[in-house]
Amino acid sequence: MSNKPYPTILRALLLLTILVGLAGRARADDGYRLWLKYDLLPDAGQRKAYQRTFQFITLEQPATPTLQAAAAELQHGLLGLLGQGVPLQSGGKRGAGGIVLRVEPQAAADGLAAASYHVFQQNKNIVVAGPTDVAVLYGAFALLRQLQTGQPVTNLDLRSAPKIRYRLLNHWDNPNGTIERGYAGSSIWKWDELPYRLDPRYQDYARANASIGVNGVVLNNVNASARYLTGEYIPKVAALAGVMRPYGIRVYLSVMWAAPKTIGGLPTADPLDPRVQQWWAQKTDELYKAIPDFGGFLVKANSEGEPGPQDYGRTHAEGANMLATALGTHDGIVMWRAFVYKANPKGDRTTEAYSEFKPLDGKFAPQVLVQVKNGPIDFQPREPFHPLFGAMPQTPLLLEVQITQEYLGFATHLVFLAPLFKETLDANTYTRPTRSTVANIITDGPQSIPSKSLKANYPQSLPMSGMAGVANIGSDRNWTGHPMGQANWYAFGRLAWEPTLTSEAIAGEWTRMTLTTEPKAAQTITDMLVKSHGIYVRYSTPLGLHHIMGQNIHFGPEPWLAQSARPDWTAVYYHKADSEGLGFNRTATGSNALSLYAPELQKQWGNPATCPLEYLLWFHHVGWNKPLSTGRTLWNELCTRYYTGADSVQWLQRQWTQVQPAVDPAVYADVAGRLQVQRSEALLWRDACVLYFQTFSRQPIPTPFQRPDRTLDEVKRIVAIYQLR
Amino acid sequence: MSNKPYPTILRALLLLTILVGLAGRARADDGYRLWLKYDLLPDAGQRKAYQRTFQFITLEQPATPTLQAAAAELQHGLLGLLGQGVPLQSGGKRGAGGIVLRVEPQAAADGLAAASYHVFQQNKNIVVAGPTDVAVLYGAFALLRQLQTGQPVTNLDLRSAPKIRYRLLNHWDNPNGTIERGYAGSSIWKWDELPYRLDPRYQDYARANASIGVNGVVLNNVNASARYLTGEYIPKVAALAGVMRPYGIRVYLSVMWAAPKTIGGLPTADPLDPRVQQWWAQKTDELYKAIPDFGGFLVKANSEGEPGPQDYGRTHAEGANMLATALGTHDGIVMWRAFVYKANPKGDRTTEAYSEFKPLDGKFAPQVLVQVKNGPIDFQPREPFHPLFGAMPQTPLLLEVQITQEYLGFATHLVFLAPLFKETLDANTYTRPTRSTVANIITDGPQSIPSKSLKANYPQSLPMSGMAGVANIGSDRNWTGHPMGQANWYAFGRLAWEPTLTSEAIAGEWTRMTLTTEPKAAQTITDMLVKSHGIYVRYSTPLGLHHIMGQNIHFGPEPWLAQSARPDWTAVYYHKADSEGLGFNRTATGSNALSLYAPELQKQWGNPATCPLEYLLWFHHVGWNKPLSTGRTLWNELCTRYYTGADSVQWLQRQWTQVQPAVDPAVYADVAGRLQVQRSEALLWRDACVLYFQTFSRQPIPTPFQRPDRTLDEVKRIVAIYQLR
Repeated sequence: MSNKPYPTILRALLLLTILVGLAGRARADDGYRLWLKYDLLPDAGQRKAYQRTFQFITLEQPATPTLQAAAAELQHGLLGLLGQGVPLQSGGKRGAGGIVLRVEPQAAADGLAAASYHVFQQNKNIVVAGPTDVAVLYGAFALLRQLQTGQPVTNLDLRSAPKIRYRLLNHWDNPNGTIERGYAGSSIWKWDELPYRLDPRYQDYARANASIGVNGVVLNNVNASARYLTGEYIPKVAALAGVMRPYGIRVYLSVMWAAPKTIGGLPTADPLDPRVQQWWAQKTDELYKAIPDFGGFLVKANSEGEPGPQDYGRTHAEGANMLATALGTHDGIVMWRAFVYKANPKGDRTTEAYSEFKPLDGKFAPQVLVQVKNGPIDFQPREPFHPLFGAMPQTPLLLEVQITQEYLGFATHLVFLAPLFKETLDANTYTRPTRSTVANIITDGPQSIPSKSLKANYPQSLPMSGMAGVANIGSDRNWTGHPMGQANWYAFGRLAWEPTLTSEAIAGEWTRMTLTTEPKAAQTITDMLVKSHGIYVRYSTPLGLHHIMGQNIHFGPEPWLAQSARPDWTAVYYHKADSEGLGFNRTATGSNALSLYAPELQKQWGNPATCPLEYLLWFHHVGWNKPLSTGRTLWNELCTRYYTGADSVQWLQRQWTQVQPAVDPAVYADVAGRLQVQRSEALLWRDACVLYFQTFSRQPIPTPFQRPDRTLDEVKRIVAIYQLR
Repeated sequence: MSNKPYPTILRALLLLTILVGLAGRARADDGYRLWLKYDLLPDAGQRKAYQRTFQFITLEQPATPTLQAAAAELQHGLLGLLGQGVPLQSGGKRGAGGIVLRVEPQAAADGLAAASYHVFQQNKNIVVAGPTDVAVLYGAFALLRQLQTGQPVTNLDLRSAPKIRYRLLNHWDNPNGTIERGYAGSSIWKWDELPYRLDPRYQDYARANASIGVNGVVLNNVNASARYLTGEYIPKVAALAGVMRPYGIRVYLSVMWAAPKTIGGLPTADPLDPRVQQWWAQKTDELYKAIPDFGGFLVKANSEGEPGPQDYGRTHAEGANMLATALGTHDGIVMWRAFVYKANPKGDRTTEAYSEFKPLDGKFAPQVLVQVKNGPIDFQPREPFHPLFGAMPQTPLLLEVQITQEYLGFATHLVFLAPLFKETLDANTYTRPTRSTVANIITDGPQSIPSKSLKANYPQSLPMSGMAGVANIGSDRNWTGHPMGQANWYAFGRLAWEPTLTSEAIAGEWTRMTLTTEPKAAQTITDMLVKSHGIYVRYSTPLGLHHIMGQNIHFGPEPWLAQSARPDWTAVYYHKADSEGLGFNRTATGSNALSLYAPELQKQWGNPATCPLEYLLWFHHVGWNKPLSTGRTLWNELCTRYYTGADSVQWLQRQWTQVQPAVDPAVYADVAGRLQVQRSEALLWRDACVLYFQTFSRQPIPTPFQRPDRTLDEVKRIVAIYQLR
């Protein structure tokens, strides 16, 4: 028949080809799958080798929801990577050439060991083992990562235990769906739909976090609404907790200090008032009744207008300890933020948290961690580590970093943050004879706290250690706006698990899992990622400059900002440019913030000749003509960094062009477009800063650089546009 | 070889099957494709019949971008629906059994006819013809709709011309990505990424709009930022216009009246000041230079705090006409909103727009349309039509409806809005001997205006007619939050094209294109959609009640709201409950707003005995014990409606359960979850209103209804929670 030119089988094949094509087109990589892509491995030989190794999955124990999640992830991943359905064998049946999931309770396992996995070959099977089912889940993800990055699985022996106990994302998400400092759409939490509708995205969020070891999530903004503590919202929180639980993730809430007044009807929120104490104890019981593994509270108190215990003449410790008492025998914690600063035009904001919290060392209840930002200002592109690290030996400190790029180009600048996180983690505080880096101080914790109720999973006393990342996650299809922003979420999780990982290793892993396994392209992208933070610092805030962004402007530069609701929200407060020079004198002749650091650092940083150039203007007011170690004067070096930094964006663009054949076209176009925005904004940063500081240095732009082809007034007009209503 | 149990072809087939399965799983319907789903038609016989008819596509004219878009859409649609690749033949080659795209310029075609399509059989081909390429694009979508809804294509003869010239979406999107009254994520416009990165979503947005005939889009909030008029933003707007252009969609901007001051540096924005006039003329030239088909301006002036010509003692007409003059010879329009109301505790807000605009009839320049909301308050669940319709015979009026469900349950209530839009469109104003419905008044226009520059496409003088819908579109993957919200976007476009379509027809089309072609399920869903608006009104604002929502509350009820920044933002201003009865007396013994309507309506609506029950409390203060036409007293009828309305949500739930086998599981679960939210919120509406009004009626809840199992105070506490920060 003329209608059937092909045999049936060929017609079927043709139709399938078309449908696959369609599906493929519809599935142009939109970034939704993050680093858990599981696309068919391109190397048929490697696929075949893997296929022989992964013919079944078996559970040695009865399936818990977590073990089910581990098995389902392996099935999903292997189907995609190998094009092979891998059956889950029931009843612990065993052959050769499969995966065995094994929970091996260990009497000696403490909290960190309880999460440790061991993936190894045994009797021609791959065993994924750990003392808890969550550890097995972590092992399953590690095994998948091995395949995704094209590593061999013969003689496999992967062992890992997290170094930090509380590995938390902090969402600054508001009940109305907006996100404070969010640049990737609106909140993924759909409070209006909860508890009845569970967006399928919640589970994918949990999977992604479990794959990198994140084990807790603070759902709401630290500028907290009291809604979450009400009978209307607790079931919503509980519904989310139910989605997270199989993935080993506990939910936490930011609490509004005045909640006993706003929703409790009490006349006070004084932490020493028995009615307040009772209210919190009852509220905590109510939460644990609905969410038996509720994680605890995060508190921003007496900071930037938020209420707190100081409103009643009480200390942060008195406030935190009241909440710890309310937690009672529940296995939860209080995270009390040290991000506080008074409005003082004559002061130095870098010293404020230290002054308030250092005297409280030793005064906090055992369930309290003090949550300290990486630096003493506020998530600047580069800061020296926060002086509280090492200064509170009796208090567990939880390191807070910002994954969302509030001061780092929002969602249009490619900035890989692992190098920034590492600068803090690896910084030597010199406050202890050994193990004195910030990472050591966080991981060691001050003491061991007996855990109350999580006996099954965490039978031993535990170090109180934590690291929190302010999430860059939003409702954008690809979660993070900039496709490369996913790498920052990934890097946070990997570093919270193992702070000694290198930025290169993390970037390489993420790139191969997410963008391409083609070796040369993967190396090129890894290189771009690793260098990107340094590039951003050069064209925005080189040499230790900080906080010279506009308050409401997207890409940032407003070094001329001199009026604001508070003096320490202006730019001039920080850069202190004058006809003599530039920079904030924080030595003994200035604010003396330097004295908060160890003598070794005071010595190094206190001398402009030995102070690393990246911190120079953070600690010193330096003359425009002062020669630096580079052989250039300050003015020349400043201009050099702004110009070469902005030009490095073109280098990023060229590198990206080279990888085009190796990455998905949609992702390629997306990043290429954002790099073009970044180039434009880098030039604005450069022009704004050199033209503005030139009004003080009164020197020409040094050769070989060309004077900007616009005036300072023109740049100011552009900046003003982005601050219009 | 043991590794090759199957012949190569079968192995390939197997792999393809797996991949298709994977793709299918990854493609669980997430709603992104809207009503342009193009899934393989389930009926193989029908597919085969279609396949024979659609073997190629040919263009009779050189391919314009619009004809290319039409051909590409047909190829994409036919590939999906029929599983058949349909080649585009070049050079007008012709055979039998294909699609011919034909532009047939007609000397007599006016603006509406220019967009009219004719799809018909000729010489064994299907011809898609129209006087312009955009008309052909509309015809292509009509042809695809025919297939999607399973209609025959033999002896095809589809003809249609739009009845309204300007069919516009209004986006209330802000530069920072938030949306005023948006409930589906953040704005789809990524201003920070523009103009360099074009989100692929923009094109899919344009496709969806073109498929329903929308031909213009106002990109930004009527509470406008001046940013869009700057040199920074015009290239961004132009980039979006470039994506829209092939789809016959022009971009428009909402303008901030004070822009000459805020970005122009002038000391005034007085429309009679020559500097202001010159600034706008230059700005308009700048816009048209960047965007040759720029559509024009939408203005909200002297309303809710926005600046406007009245700030300088000028009228709305003087303001609008100044902008019309600035447009000069450019083919653009000014849409001037009539949504104005002064804060007057003794007044009646329903009369304000009438008082300000009626005297200006005949005073507007020919390029100006006055944009009037469907009702005289503000997008309430039900309002009588706006009294300005029919009252300004010399002025073209543009009907503004709200697609986003600001007062209709946000994104958790299933409310199909076509019946609401139809109530206005079909309302008889009695202001003309014939053709006196609101739809007639809009479509006829007051006069014909010679078009200036769009000579090629629109050679004739044109009626100035328009309909605008405030978009419910956001960045949520499914665009509208509630999957059924897509039907409201769809219905708006269809009605703006053809106001005489019935709600049933539109609901049926949308359902079959989007959810299921299974006849019984499609009928069930159509029925749910058509009844849903009436259900919402019953449990929220029955009998003509209005504006009894809280200011900041999600689902709404706050009839006790008595204090606000303005008297006409409270609830008590509107319901006027007292011990005697309930309702706003707008007859001659009250505010006399009724006098703004035609005598026929005054007679019918002015008598409580003949006033339709749905408007009873809108026009009358009715005694609690007054017997109504239903045989019940007002109090009994009020309770009956609240109770039966809330119970009808359970009916919706049962109907939805019945269609489960016929709809995608992800969509099923999504809607089921939202219906559960809706049920809970309907009960809150019911309890809030009957308990509150009971404090005035002082009568028990009538049998057979059960007293709410919570107190008014408890309900108030819940409402308060949703208004916390």
